[in-house]
Amino acid sequence: MRIDSIDFFYLAMPEILDIGDGSQDALLVRVRAGDEVGWGECEAAPLVSIASLVCPMSHSACKPVAASVLGQSLDDIADIRRIGDLVRAQSLDLLQADHTLSGIDIALWDLLGRRLHEPVWKLLGYPRAYPKTPYASVLFGDAPEATFEKARSIRARGFRAAKFGWGPFGQSTVAADEAQLQAAREGLGDDGLLLVDAGTVWNTNVAAARARLPALNAVRATWLEEPFVSGALGEYHTLASESGSVGLAGGEGCHNFHMAKQMLDHAGLKFVQIDAGRIGGITISKDVADLASGRGVTYVNHTFTSNLALSASLQPFAGLEADTICEYPTELKSLAVAMTKTHLAPDSNGLLHVPDAPGLGIDPDLDGIRPYLVDTEIRVGGRLLYQTPDLFAS
Amino acid sequence: MRIDSIDFFYLAMPEILDIGDGSQDALLVRVRAGDEVGWGECEAAPLVSIASLVCPMSHSACKPVAASVLGQSLDDIADIRRIGDLVRAQSLDLLQADHTLSGIDIALWDLLGRRLHEPVWKLLGYPRAYPKTPYASVLFGDAPEATFEKARSIRARGFRAAKFGWGPFGQSTVAADEAQLQAAREGLGDDGLLLVDAGTVWNTNVAAARARLPALNAVRATWLEEPFVSGALGEYHTLASESGSVGLAGGEGCHNFHMAKQMLDHAGLKFVQIDAGRIGGITISKDVADLASGRGVTYVNHTFTSNLALSASLQPFAGLEADTICEYPTELKSLAVAMTKTHLAPDSNGLLHVPDAPGLGIDPDLDGIRPYLVDTEIRVGGRLLYQTPDLFAS
Repeated sequence: MRIDSIDFFYLAMPEILDIGDGSQDALLVRVRAGDEVGWGECEAAPLVSIASLVCPMSHSACKPVAASVLGQSLDDIADIRRIGDLVRAQSLDLLQADHTLSGIDIALWDLLGRRLHEPVWKLLGYPRAYPKTPYASVLFGDAPEATFEKARSIRARGFRAAKFGWGPFGQSTVAADEAQLQAAREGLGDDGLLLVDAGTVWNTNVAAARARLPALNAVRATWLEEPFVSGALGEYHTLASESGSVGLAGGEGCHNFHMAKQMLDHAGLKFVQIDAGRIGGITISKDVADLASGRGVTYVNHTFTSNLALSASLQPFAGLEADTICEYPTELKSLAVAMTKTHLAPDSNGLLHVPDAPGLGIDPDLDGIRPYLVDTEIRVGGRLLYQTPDLFAS
Repeated sequence: MRIDSIDFFYLAMPEILDIGDGSQDALLVRVRAGDEVGWGECEAAPLVSIASLVCPMSHSACKPVAASVLGQSLDDIADIRRIGDLVRAQSLDLLQADHTLSGIDIALWDLLGRRLHEPVWKLLGYPRAYPKTPYASVLFGDAPEATFEKARSIRARGFRAAKFGWGPFGQSTVAADEAQLQAAREGLGDDGLLLVDAGTVWNTNVAAARARLPALNAVRATWLEEPFVSGALGEYHTLASESGSVGLAGGEGCHNFHMAKQMLDHAGLKFVQIDAGRIGGITISKDVADLASGRGVTYVNHTFTSNLALSASLQPFAGLEADTICEYPTELKSLAVAMTKTHLAPDSNGLLHVPDAPGLGIDPDLDGIRPYLVDTEIRVGGRLLYQTPDLFAS
């Protein structure tokens, strides 16, 4: 097969709110090769990834991502890695390229899985997929009372684990954060797994993060996620040595294998969180899962968008029995729900199963998507470089 | 002052060749505040950086770069850092943002320098600017004969140092590279400073790089640049321990302070090369220069575009007397020459002087630029988000 087309669809809610909710827009990717179709998704900033797909070449190491994908042969999984390597070489100086490639790589795995009638995790070499314990991933409430109610509702829905993040956390006093953490623990109950996401709020300020450690230990948080920006390896390492039973989690900001490896080498993480929609797709995510597994670091997906992205992000560690926790966004905007016919939900035991179906096992819902399509057009030097493709074109 | 406008201008040669020459296009940045104007330049992929300036918000940590710059107050240098920090926080999940910010940060320094009638290097705290020894930065010839001629011509023009990179180097046999290196040394003469740029050609392949070390040592290369991609810290470190008198150079791929710090911490570099048009501008470049200086690592600019970008890239280490080498592109396409009225050239002793004039000391040549302007238009959801601004608007 040859890759005949790459179509990017910009989807968005009618109104985008200034909150840390990544499900408000999406960049859906459709790749066609021969008679097969595969679907993927790039995380965040749809317009910028569209631009990096189609931009004019700047020089030999700054080409549009499409230049390294269109027309390439796609017969087995080695082709997917070869195409990714080509993108990384030919778009070396195009910073956005890793995010853009991510959705394409995901679509290529989906396409190949559909063609070979195998789930992606099997193509990745896993003999079986183990169910995961999903944590409901939500934002902190504006006040502790709202956080308490969120936690209680999560527990009532049968979740054993919950992650609270962003919102007011880390933005004001230690006492305010303490109250938020206690509210989360109370709402969740004594035996719930409590995870906390600081959303890089302290940037590189170790003292600010350190000041929250007693409260985090007091509520028995399993992890503190992203106290700092991804690159602050030394700061992570210092905090890790003082964090007691609270493990450090991070890695969603990694946009290539090397960044994730550096965090494993130097940041003292107990949990590495990888977004397949950012790091270069399923291929690179699986490389990180292999590396983490060998180091005794737990791999966790980072996902805050649709169930298509969720399935993609589960594949790389589907076969790792010991890595049981998975992120499961539960406050998805209607767009992210409408995107797919297939929806992944925990079973009666509260466990989430990676689809045992060809490819990612997720069918997009074109009629559901249509209302959210954002017409986009890019013209450069009199040439139309991009126009929203026909979603229904066969 | 408040920042009233940010204008991006996409400039390109009529034809872009598939070679490693970064001067074939440019993204010129104009920032206005009150009665002042400042100019900057973002490295590579103009369309993608334009998109990240104006894209719709995805969520609270994925905003367009303009959202964190327009309307901000700008009265002293602390404001520039504050604006950069805001961009990094509010565009955390927008990968391209660091490249986009770079040109804006450069323009802000230029603007403030013009307003305060001081060169940027003085605003950065340097009491004086030391002249640099420019190396002519060129591509390897397709064959050793062409490389020999380039080297001889560079020498004849009075340069004491030359860097050869990209082209066929590293792409075929060790013997072929040996012939290229010998040709460069012969053309340059025994006492010329010879620098070699592998342009990440070996990705992470230490054996391939190692195989070239004898030839590099034989021709007394001062440095081997970018044998690997920027993130391959372990591979750099291994090679550094075996490279003899040839120092390793790298860092142009760094798009934030942390990446550069990691290279200084873990890669065994003797030379750290920073592109102010990628790493977040002059502010972050100066942070790296300070760090490198404390570590005994030599700071070198990375510049392959206009003299505006060259002046910006010289400011961060203008006052470091010991760091004498600077990159000086000598094969600029006509676009990069036409962009500025001011041109920086070595004096009769072969030394390059950082401009002692307000701001960057470089005046753009609007009439020279006009023929290279590329009309660009971006529409999203029926709204015109970007249209090439009026270059001559006062």
